Amino acid sequence: MMDYNGFFRAELDTLREDGNYRTFAELERHCGNFPNASWHNGAGDVKIWCSNDYLGMGQHPTVLAAMHEALDRCGAGAGGTRNISGNTHDHALLEAEIADLHNKDAALLFTSGYVANWSALGTLAARIPDCVVLSDALNHASMIEGIRHSRAGKVIWKHNDLEDLERKLAELPDGQPKLIAFESVYSMDGDIAPIREICDLADRYGAMTYLDEVHAVGLYGARGAGIAERDGVMDRITVVEGTLGKAFGVVGGYIAASAELCDFVRSFASGFIFTTALPPSVAAGAAASIRHLKCSSEERRRQQENVAAVRRRLDEIGLPHLDNPSHIIPVMVGDPVKCKFISDVLLKDHGIYIQPINYPTVPKGSERLRITPSPVHSQEDIAHLVTALESLWTRCELARRPVAA
Amino acid sequence: MMDYNGFFRAELDTLREDGNYRTFAELERHCGNFPNASWHNGAGDVKIWCSNDYLGMGQHPTVLAAMHEALDRCGAGAGGTRNISGNTHDHALLEAEIADLHNKDAALLFTSGYVANWSALGTLAARIPDCVVLSDALNHASMIEGIRHSRAGKVIWKHNDLEDLERKLAELPDGQPKLIAFESVYSMDGDIAPIREICDLADRYGAMTYLDEVHAVGLYGARGAGIAERDGVMDRITVVEGTLGKAFGVVGGYIAASAELCDFVRSFASGFIFTTALPPSVAAGAAASIRHLKCSSEERRRQQENVAAVRRRLDEIGLPHLDNPSHIIPVMVGDPVKCKFISDVLLKDHGIYIQPINYPTVPKGSERLRITPSPVHSQEDIAHLVTALESLWTRCELARRPVAA
Ligand SMILES: Cc1ncc(COP(=O)(O)O)c(C=O)c1O
Ligand SMILES: Cc1ncc(COP(=O)(O)O)c(C=O)c1O
Repeated sequence: MMDYNGFFRAELDTLREDGNYRTFAELERHCGNFPNASWHNGAGDVKIWCSNDYLGMGQHPTVLAAMHEALDRCGAGAGGTRNISGNTHDHALLEAEIADLHNKDAALLFTSGYVANWSALGTLAARIPDCVVLSDALNHASMIEGIRHSRAGKVIWKHNDLEDLERKLAELPDGQPKLIAFESVYSMDGDIAPIREICDLADRYGAMTYLDEVHAVGLYGARGAGIAERDGVMDRITVVEGTLGKAFGVVGGYIAASAELCDFVRSFASGFIFTTALPPSVAAGAAASIRHLKCSSEERRRQQENVAAVRRRLDEIGLPHLDNPSHIIPVMVGDPVKCKFISDVLLKDHGIYIQPINYPTVPKGSERLRITPSPVHSQEDIAHLVTALESLWTRCELARRPVAA
Repeated sequence: MMDYNGFFRAELDTLREDGNYRTFAELERHCGNFPNASWHNGAGDVKIWCSNDYLGMGQHPTVLAAMHEALDRCGAGAGGTRNISGNTHDHALLEAEIADLHNKDAALLFTSGYVANWSALGTLAARIPDCVVLSDALNHASMIEGIRHSRAGKVIWKHNDLEDLERKLAELPDGQPKLIAFESVYSMDGDIAPIREICDLADRYGAMTYLDEVHAVGLYGARGAGIAERDGVMDRITVVEGTLGKAFGVVGGYIAASAELCDFVRSFASGFIFTTALPPSVAAGAAASIRHLKCSSEERRRQQENVAAVRRRLDEIGLPHLDNPSHIIPVMVGDPVKCKFISDVLLKDHGIYIQPINYPTVPKGSERLRITPSPVHSQEDIAHLVTALESLWTRCELARRPVAA
């Protein structure tokens, strides 16, 4: 008979030997005082530089007030699935807010962006007869799992490569249903998809488009609807998918699309139907956050200034970072051991928390520190970060870029 | 080229024609005054009789205080995945609370019970070489999808049938890794699995046991750990899975098991790794709820009294309900149109909300009203419910049981 725990131990040992075993930092963010947090594994406070609460909306008074109010009004949880007693007025208001944000007929909430991708792609690809999914090579795990779950045909196209996408579309029969699945801002490299051109191809070949804007909603466009809004192509996307847990600062996920498509997914997606609805307070907080960011560009502007400031300071001292048009700054270390070492020393000696990003999240040799400056970082925070990085760069004898004289 | 929206419309029309199209009641529960809620599709207030907030913990002052406190302390969301800045002190405390509840080494949180089942079963079954899953025929959708996703071998055994399970275990090779997946309280019939006997078979055939206690945690056992606690067999279960969204009144899901198993799932489960962590306030609220129900049996006692009272009143007037040993009272209508009609009239004319349960959730001919009495229903609420049901039973000319003289 099998020794199950022995098997688990051996697999975990392999992870450890390969340097892929993950230890979580235990944090406690200080509301009203982001990016500061207590670090429970060690002593003292740290500054978080890798949060996906990109705009600090998780501590915004309007968001917190909405959550407190809904807690007192409706209680803690929804108490049921959306169909069985868990559908609340706050869910309806949030879905309307999201549909309006993306200028779509309808929206549908899920417990997370992961579940939104998995459920929506899984349902569409499985239920549209003979559907084939054209999936960008760097799509997120949640999309990959949804497509895999659907058992539909899958064609992977080279990351952000229009020629490859067109070649692959052209190879498919005209009448076959097609779904092009891709992201706007890719979270590890921070590069951005050519959405308009992908939509042109979709039109030409009769494909639907499924766009994950998880790392863009709240952050781009005049009202924070994402890159498709910024690029003026919102109406050309069949399904936009987003999260309420990053720039909007709360938790949850969604799709926005035609009324028919949302109703179809609502009616058939197991991951939507058979699960407790999000708490009303979460829905109320997310709606307040979206509403705020529709009208206020202040947070986006200050974030972009801080992103530019960090980039400039890194350039001044020649620290290599991926040049991309987004808010994500990947500082390239290129070595898993040094990457982890730098992260550890930043945390212990400098009170700076940046989780190292190693294989398998990124390819070997491209290990990095993924830095996400936000409006709540100060100029002193930036100076402190860059000084600490510089000292570690020297200590680890890592290469620098030439610096302009 | 395919007319996608036309396809969605046609599929939705089929649902409508079959009577399977779902319309959600839009509710707003009144915190401090459960089971009362506003009904936003109609006028006025209703009493909810089908909530899975089984004990009313969603309005418990201790739970709400913990959530308010954590909101003010840490803000709205976690701001990242567990690995990248989203692992907070509140998550660690909650996992310790859950492990203690089930008397296991460790516990692992997921965004929902659905994701817990899908991720844990999907990961275990996929990664243990040659694993075969023995799955009870009435297992929940989330377990079925997890097993399906794993691509592992799957053997379905007849619901709660020990002979069939043993026959199927005996057919498998001795050395093959095996996982028996089942629930304790089945949510639609309210029947309960023979856990001890299933564990005996697991021991005999060298299988792991995976027990979904979603409809039992908080409700059974001296500390609310579920049926396995009540039956004194907690230590014999390999993995117990539960939700924080039903009796605990908040949202989220978990597994509890050996340290190795939890660490293995933590390290490999896509649905755990690649998603934003639950908000600290949700973790704090759930921990407070578990802590409270570990020490207080008052809510369980009052719930059981109300369940008994509703059953007694139904028996007095001969209304047929499934006789089961749990807190779930399925009142059998046996006709989809009448079931929906009764539910509609209860809502509109009597201010009573009970969602009709029709095919495909239950087999055709077993359409029902699934009633979940809780400690927050009063004796007047019960009288009001039974009187309304009686009048509708007469109006719909539904059969009654003989009534004892
Ligand atoms: C591209 C992308 N899509 C989807 C998700 C999942 O969203 P959520 O965190 O809301 O589950 C993530 C990360 O978490 C992501 O990076
Ligand atoms: C048996 C069972 N397991 C798991 C789940 C999923 O739990 P959650 O609602 O926390 O996603 C449910 C229902 O929602 C259920 O009935």
